[in-house]
Amino acid sequence: RVYRLAVIPGDGIGKEVVPEGLRVLEAAARRYGFRIETDQFDFASYDYYASHGRMMPEDWKDRIGGHDAVFFGAVGWPDKIPDHVSLWGSLVAMRREFDQYANVRPVRLMPGVASPLAGRKHGDIDYVIVRENTEGEYSSVGGRMFAGTDREFVVQETVMTRIGVDRIMRYAFELARKQGRRRVTSATKSNGISISMPYWDERFREMARNYPDIETDSFHIDILCAHLVQRPDHFDVIVASNLFGDILSDLGPACTGTIGIAPAGNIDPERRYPSLFEPVHGSAPDIAGQGIANPIGQIWAASMMLEHLGESEAATAVEAAIERVLSEPSLRTCDLGGRADTATCGKAVADALG
Amino acid sequence: RVYRLAVIPGDGIGKEVVPEGLRVLEAAARRYGFRIETDQFDFASYDYYASHGRMMPEDWKDRIGGHDAVFFGAVGWPDKIPDHVSLWGSLVAMRREFDQYANVRPVRLMPGVASPLAGRKHGDIDYVIVRENTEGEYSSVGGRMFAGTDREFVVQETVMTRIGVDRIMRYAFELARKQGRRRVTSATKSNGISISMPYWDERFREMARNYPDIETDSFHIDILCAHLVQRPDHFDVIVASNLFGDILSDLGPACTGTIGIAPAGNIDPERRYPSLFEPVHGSAPDIAGQGIANPIGQIWAASMMLEHLGESEAATAVEAAIERVLSEPSLRTCDLGGRADTATCGKAVADALG
Ligand SMILES: CC(C)[C@H](C(=O)O)[C@@H](O)C(=O)O
Ligand SMILES: CC(C)[C@H](C(=O)O)[C@@H](O)C(=O)O
Repeated sequence: RVYRLAVIPGDGIGKEVVPEGLRVLEAAARRYGFRIETDQFDFASYDYYASHGRMMPEDWKDRIGGHDAVFFGAVGWPDKIPDHVSLWGSLVAMRREFDQYANVRPVRLMPGVASPLAGRKHGDIDYVIVRENTEGEYSSVGGRMFAGTDREFVVQETVMTRIGVDRIMRYAFELARKQGRRRVTSATKSNGISISMPYWDERFREMARNYPDIETDSFHIDILCAHLVQRPDHFDVIVASNLFGDILSDLGPACTGTIGIAPAGNIDPERRYPSLFEPVHGSAPDIAGQGIANPIGQIWAASMMLEHLGESEAATAVEAAIERVLSEPSLRTCDLGGRADTATCGKAVADALG
Repeated sequence: RVYRLAVIPGDGIGKEVVPEGLRVLEAAARRYGFRIETDQFDFASYDYYASHGRMMPEDWKDRIGGHDAVFFGAVGWPDKIPDHVSLWGSLVAMRREFDQYANVRPVRLMPGVASPLAGRKHGDIDYVIVRENTEGEYSSVGGRMFAGTDREFVVQETVMTRIGVDRIMRYAFELARKQGRRRVTSATKSNGISISMPYWDERFREMARNYPDIETDSFHIDILCAHLVQRPDHFDVIVASNLFGDILSDLGPACTGTIGIAPAGNIDPERRYPSLFEPVHGSAPDIAGQGIANPIGQIWAASMMLEHLGESEAATAVEAAIERVLSEPSLRTCDLGGRADTATCGKAVADALG
């Protein structure tokens, strides 16, 4: 088996953690008998923008559309370029154009990582957030009127389509089945957001009927955030709109000690396009260039990618290797109280694969 | 001084905690030499809805519009009436019609209350959330098209006006000054919500210029939620849109141990209409009728109301009395690990006023 990857390190620490992800992928390939072929791309970065005036080449879809997956680092450099320019011109564009409608983010309290939540330990927190990734609150529809006057106002439209809502819910229920999880929780706010969120609830109830084997419940986003802090053990799979999924998937990892190790899969379940795998953290300009970034988020993203490519055994092995390395204080990076640099930590995971 | 209050207990535990709030107000009045006159109203409740087919009488504005403040319990009974019917027909209508555009929610880790955050103790968490309370994501503009077909979609419009955004930001900066707080933090999501949130940022930068004595910063709502867990000590005043403020003001109190003691002021700073004071918690049908609800949220709301009415000394005294009672395990209600019932806890606060 040969897998062709489009590798996009992007900005900042993206450039430092992606090589560690690749190192682990190579080790997994040797161990489990498959091959990885990579094409590296320099776009989706500030440097590319600085010399080309745009974040990606016009033909980016042709250049990476034929690959089996995109292995992505991080993009953005707020001091040099506004986030919405860098992100909408790259990451958000790929999510949308490749119809990667499921943003899947596992949240797990790992061994050796201290949770900021009192008394929570490895095994207590283990759920998956399934975030709608193409529509909802992240629309580009709307505008401004009466600019510069007292009457000035802006309108931003949240758009939810039956197709868009149904497919993300179906994906969440299927994922629950596949992973042997008991419950799907819906994130809503139908008591305040009076049109789109009641629709979300309606489709959730409808979809739930097809999965009598899966329990369901539903919480408004405000109290759901509170629950992620107060009783994170309740959750199995959470299905959420684009914005709510975004919020939950920073809050969830924060409750497991660090956003630095959390991965995300931006998945086209129909496999018409490559899916994209990335860490949840950003480009972190403040620590870029020092070789101290935590590579675990990128490596965990590699494991999700292997699962998506059909290499389940290798994927599981990478996760186990991550757990072993995190359990070893000397192999952790400084954000987790260790003294290992990025490469030492990455090598340790590769070595732990045997 | 005489203050006329419109008292609306509402549903569920609202009916149990409001009398405790009044008990403390009476005690404060005796102690600090003012008078409280109350008019009780039975609307904004499921019972009223059941017999009248609407949440409030048509002339509700005349009935309570002349009072100095509204002292509100909680509304809603999800098994009997959909939240958006009960809430939009009462609480949300009052916020909007009385133009109570500032929803102010203090978040403080109280003595004797265990935080779910490891190692945080009394004094570590102390900030105020200032939430826009009339526009933004809670609009009723939008609709559904192609219902029942595969093309079905809904649109919900977020609307932000210059007047609406500027006045809530001004309120936040003024509050920071008044309370001697150093920093105002803006909750945004301009990297994802591409029209309304960049506008929010623009107005925040503009308003900040008028307050050179106040520090400012700005975080996207996803990472801001993470920060409330990971470094709550950073925050002083947070200014947020209607939806983001709603989310932060459940998450914040959850991090201080319980939503059961958090208060909210729905304030018309221009004093054209009565402001409304309520606990953040809801009607909690599951524990209603047992006399075990925690009255502290309602009592703290009473303290905010006293501050608003100009009785600062009494307001401060009520807060001090709350702290004394919470420090005493036997006087806490069962949600905080104590054995006091609602009335015992309420009486204790009244007694502590001396
Ligand atoms: C009840 C609901 C409409 C309300 C809101 O979202 O504003 C509540 O959650 C609150 O925070 O007061
Ligand atoms: C960068 C930004 C557009 C993005 C999002 O909000 O989707 C990020 O926060 C994420 O979660 O991947």
